Amino acid sequence: MSRTVHVMDRLEPDFAALRERAFNLRWATVAPDVIPLTAADPDLPVAREVTAALTQYVATPHLSYGPACGLPEFRRAVAAHFAREKAAAVAPERVIATNSAASAIGLVARHLIRSGDEVVVQDPVDFLVAESARRAGAVLRCWTPVGGRFTLDGLRSAVTARTRLISVCHPHNPLGTLWTPEDVAEISAFAADRGIRVLADEVWSDVVLDGAPFASFAGSPAPGWTIYGLSKGYALAGLRIGAVIAPDAASAAEFARVEGFEQTIEGASTLSQVAATAALERASAWREGFLAHCARQRDRAISRLGMLRGVRIDRVPQATFVLFVDLRGTGIPEDELVERIERIARVRVVPGSPRWFGAGAAGHIRLSLATTESVLDDALARIEQAWPAITAG
Amino acid sequence: MSRTVHVMDRLEPDFAALRERAFNLRWATVAPDVIPLTAADPDLPVAREVTAALTQYVATPHLSYGPACGLPEFRRAVAAHFAREKAAAVAPERVIATNSAASAIGLVARHLIRSGDEVVVQDPVDFLVAESARRAGAVLRCWTPVGGRFTLDGLRSAVTARTRLISVCHPHNPLGTLWTPEDVAEISAFAADRGIRVLADEVWSDVVLDGAPFASFAGSPAPGWTIYGLSKGYALAGLRIGAVIAPDAASAAEFARVEGFEQTIEGASTLSQVAATAALERASAWREGFLAHCARQRDRAISRLGMLRGVRIDRVPQATFVLFVDLRGTGIPEDELVERIERIARVRVVPGSPRWFGAGAAGHIRLSLATTESVLDDALARIEQAWPAITAG
Repeated sequence: MSRTVHVMDRLEPDFAALRERAFNLRWATVAPDVIPLTAADPDLPVAREVTAALTQYVATPHLSYGPACGLPEFRRAVAAHFAREKAAAVAPERVIATNSAASAIGLVARHLIRSGDEVVVQDPVDFLVAESARRAGAVLRCWTPVGGRFTLDGLRSAVTARTRLISVCHPHNPLGTLWTPEDVAEISAFAADRGIRVLADEVWSDVVLDGAPFASFAGSPAPGWTIYGLSKGYALAGLRIGAVIAPDAASAAEFARVEGFEQTIEGASTLSQVAATAALERASAWREGFLAHCARQRDRAISRLGMLRGVRIDRVPQATFVLFVDLRGTGIPEDELVERIERIARVRVVPGSPRWFGAGAAGHIRLSLATTESVLDDALARIEQAWPAITAG
Repeated sequence: MSRTVHVMDRLEPDFAALRERAFNLRWATVAPDVIPLTAADPDLPVAREVTAALTQYVATPHLSYGPACGLPEFRRAVAAHFAREKAAAVAPERVIATNSAASAIGLVARHLIRSGDEVVVQDPVDFLVAESARRAGAVLRCWTPVGGRFTLDGLRSAVTARTRLISVCHPHNPLGTLWTPEDVAEISAFAADRGIRVLADEVWSDVVLDGAPFASFAGSPAPGWTIYGLSKGYALAGLRIGAVIAPDAASAAEFARVEGFEQTIEGASTLSQVAATAALERASAWREGFLAHCARQRDRAISRLGMLRGVRIDRVPQATFVLFVDLRGTGIPEDELVERIERIARVRVVPGSPRWFGAGAAGHIRLSLATTESVLDDALARIEQAWPAITAG
């Protein structure tokens, strides 16, 4: 048995605690006999380096105001993490600590978009960027994939003379696709040539599987506004800790002033920043085990679900711990399928509805795989057994 | 020596930690020989019940997504606290956990104000409500005090047919004034009669001194939108934990949907909510000691500063741990005075500049008194000794 398996074996979830603590469609919100493979938040316990850092921090009982843009150690840790793992030499002054990646997306959208601006949004994609752009008054234009991949040609046909912002989700949720460093450079250059800004949601960039390389949009010669967070790769969703990485230090300072950080209106809990700093600096062994576990879970789910009638999984995700499953072969709408899967198989999944992932997600469901091997096996067995009933008539 | 003195004696600050952790104009940001009496954030260690709750929580290492509007136990604890201490029967469904009181003010301002709306803002008052109202596009109208008190007559003369919102800071920062329950009822009724909403910043309502009664605007028959936070009364500024208390449960749900809580764009760290819940449910002895300490610090500062030439302190604050000092008798502008106090006496205070407190604060300074007796004594002695030089020519 490999070392990484061993790491995850030690990390057996406390399901009683999850039933009290895991909200957002998960254990605390479903019926007791239902398995949630829903919101992308791992069931696995966080790294002990994180909880140890929190315990040690509060042993000195001062919880005073933090600095407006984030603790210096947090900004340095994020910058070092991007340099080490994401091919991006980022100065700490470009990093602003935010109350979650989701909040960061909302703030950057507000910062960059004026009412009536055209914004390119991938379709399908997680709903948050489109939601934030709409709130900022944007006119959305869709960038659809070709053969399951978002290409420069596809982008070109979505851009007009009125496009002010191109948003990208990288790695892509829910497709799990990854651009090569060359793709990232090309997209960045395409936008820069046209004076269009890039908003890159890289909240999944800590969950790149099989050792694939990852290049951040923060590292390109014309860097985009990049969103980072620790909910996915370190399971810290409850702490609401993320960051904006601005194109340069001056833009970061301007963002902090205009969006209310300097006025204490925005900002992130210092304790959440302490946890995040510990994760980035000390939890690499935990994450190595976690990523190997996610890859095994992915392979297990694909091999079993792919056998079911009407199910199609076009490619193996290179990143994320979600699986986007094409069920159009069943002829049943996704909302109906999701309802039947919960009612008959006692498993809850997320429908590929326009409200979550855009119109391009119709006929799909999304499963989160970041649970234990045995829970996933149980869920898959339930779905397999119930599949004839689920897809009947 | 009384029990409450004893409680504070045990709570000797760790000044080395404050020099690392206390930002926002405080120990981590001033020269080593300067005493900061600036941002209103106590130097005193937080209650051990709070740190114990945090340590216990992370011993079970799951930090999953919390519920959109806040942990049920947090919402119940805030509701119970308002019922117990603030004469307001508040249903937990009216409470939404927010990423600080400051963030809550910004969100409620955005929620209630449409561009061009007239908003009544007290002058002087802490800058955050005016700042947030301006960001929402409001036209501000000033409510100025008469004889140092904000009266209904003063309010009446600030209101016009176009007034959509009346904002109140209660207890008042920086004046330290408190309305009686009758005042609160009158102001609420005045607004309700005219169909004008009330936004009540009650972040200081846990720091009411001398056992005075406090009535929340959340408890009136036509309740306002009320802002609460734990930075002042429990010294949790770094955790950024506050709450909006909506007029009713339906308004709360609507607020959560429209302002992005349901979409995870807004929300508060679960760990911060755990700390806040412990503070509200278990730290009453700590706060009793803290309030007695604040009252003694206030009396000490008033008796000594009041002896200085050109200094006027019109009344004893009934609430807050700040002291707003009228220095117009010196004939020196407040920015110049603040510069001299830091340069000559090595004490930093906050100027009564329009940017912090409105035009009505000119000629004043604000001091935070929530430090130890010995630090305050040291600061006062420095100011006393330097006063002839500070006020010279």
